Amino acid sequence: MKPLILVSNDDGIDAKGVHELVRSLQHLGEVVCVCPEQPQSGMSMALTVNDMLRVKRVEDYHGAAMYKVSGTPVDCVKMAVDNLLPRKPDVVVSGINHGSNAAINVVYSGTMGAAFEGSAYGIPSIGFSLTSHSEDADFSPCLPVIDRLVKMVLEKGLPEGVCLNVNMPAQVKEYKGIRVVRGCRGRWDDRYDEYRDPARRPFYWLAGTFINTEPDNQDTDEWCLEHGIVSVVPVKLDPTYEKIDEVKELLGIYG
Amino acid sequence: MKPLILVSNDDGIDAKGVHELVRSLQHLGEVVCVCPEQPQSGMSMALTVNDMLRVKRVEDYHGAAMYKVSGTPVDCVKMAVDNLLPRKPDVVVSGINHGSNAAINVVYSGTMGAAFEGSAYGIPSIGFSLTSHSEDADFSPCLPVIDRLVKMVLEKGLPEGVCLNVNMPAQVKEYKGIRVVRGCRGRWDDRYDEYRDPARRPFYWLAGTFINTEPDNQDTDEWCLEHGIVSVVPVKLDPTYEKIDEVKELLGIYG
Repeated sequence: MKPLILVSNDDGIDAKGVHELVRSLQHLGEVVCVCPEQPQSGMSMALTVNDMLRVKRVEDYHGAAMYKVSGTPVDCVKMAVDNLLPRKPDVVVSGINHGSNAAINVVYSGTMGAAFEGSAYGIPSIGFSLTSHSEDADFSPCLPVIDRLVKMVLEKGLPEGVCLNVNMPAQVKEYKGIRVVRGCRGRWDDRYDEYRDPARRPFYWLAGTFINTEPDNQDTDEWCLEHGIVSVVPVKLDPTYEKIDEVKELLGIYG
Repeated sequence: MKPLILVSNDDGIDAKGVHELVRSLQHLGEVVCVCPEQPQSGMSMALTVNDMLRVKRVEDYHGAAMYKVSGTPVDCVKMAVDNLLPRKPDVVVSGINHGSNAAINVVYSGTMGAAFEGSAYGIPSIGFSLTSHSEDADFSPCLPVIDRLVKMVLEKGLPEGVCLNVNMPAQVKEYKGIRVVRGCRGRWDDRYDEYRDPARRPFYWLAGTFINTEPDNQDTDEWCLEHGIVSVVPVKLDPTYEKIDEVKELLGIYG
């Protein structure tokens, strides 16, 4: 039986990135694509609990069944696995995101939300992102990387509860390599720009820049991306901090 | 100077849980409360990037300045720290959530989204949840626990990038203790119930039950809650899986 490949994303069913992904995966198995109807950037692992969802099948693309869901990336994966697919998929592939999900962006990313949700079902899952927000970005250098990693994950699986956050530098014709690294430390130095609507009421828009607090550390995804290298960061769903005893001592709670 | 305490939640500015929290914290410092205008359950770390935000100050409550934001819990924390507060708060306290955020729920929780966001700013942060979805739940047994933990965290801080996920059992007059444990393994066995609207078009609603895959393990939050004990799970923002070398070997990537 051919592998069953579930594709999702957070840029929505109309994004170029997910079409490139579907097309590039078709020779690896049966591809079913379930994406948000609307762009869902920054939706993290949000799921719809207090509202209903609509699902609509749209036109097939390169042999893949295509569905749109009126919810988040997590909703799409749940709807696919619980309701649309004939069996549990062999891999969940999310992306290709238009924009970086390196460093702390991983926690806000809807692309990675779909991958984390795949791992919650025990399905090996990968999120792919290109560091360009252009709607018409050139994804062609990404395709050999995707082919290699999806094949490898289909063959070897991933540790339980762990998925991959893969970021690929834009404006690079041929990547200088691919490395397994950790997420870079850093933070968003953000602010809210203030505007006035025609009735003079204020409204706000989030703006800011990422501050890399360890720019010279070669073991991070940001370093790879700045040097034309694809970064693969294994990330896990369970956020429990391992040093439980340290926290017991700190809080003076030994119960 | 009195400690500056930022309060947020995901049930929205009108929820009983956040009012109880604000009232119980007032003797510990200056409290400012910034909450979503609308309920935001299940919003995880979603943040608003493709839309504007509105902010409105509403009536003070027990001496605390109260604001509502037209976004998610993460938006509220960002707006507070970047735009509303006179200085970086000494602690972020989120909740009291109406409903459990134990086990895997931590990753979907908007309450914990606010706490994680606090830790992204380097602020010691705590999310509190009561295992009852009742709008009029009795939060009084929670208050001594909150007092003790917030005081302790104000005094001792928390490890960098680590916040606390505190769950308190409902329908318990007096807790049998408080324990620092890890998040329980398990998964949602979920399904989509199908309905038909008056025009006979289908729509779907997420339903399901949590399956605890280690019910006898006493080191988990679920075990504590089932035994009348408050659970404190330290959780960290950075999801990087520590065993990078294991993944390098698995994928055959040694670059």
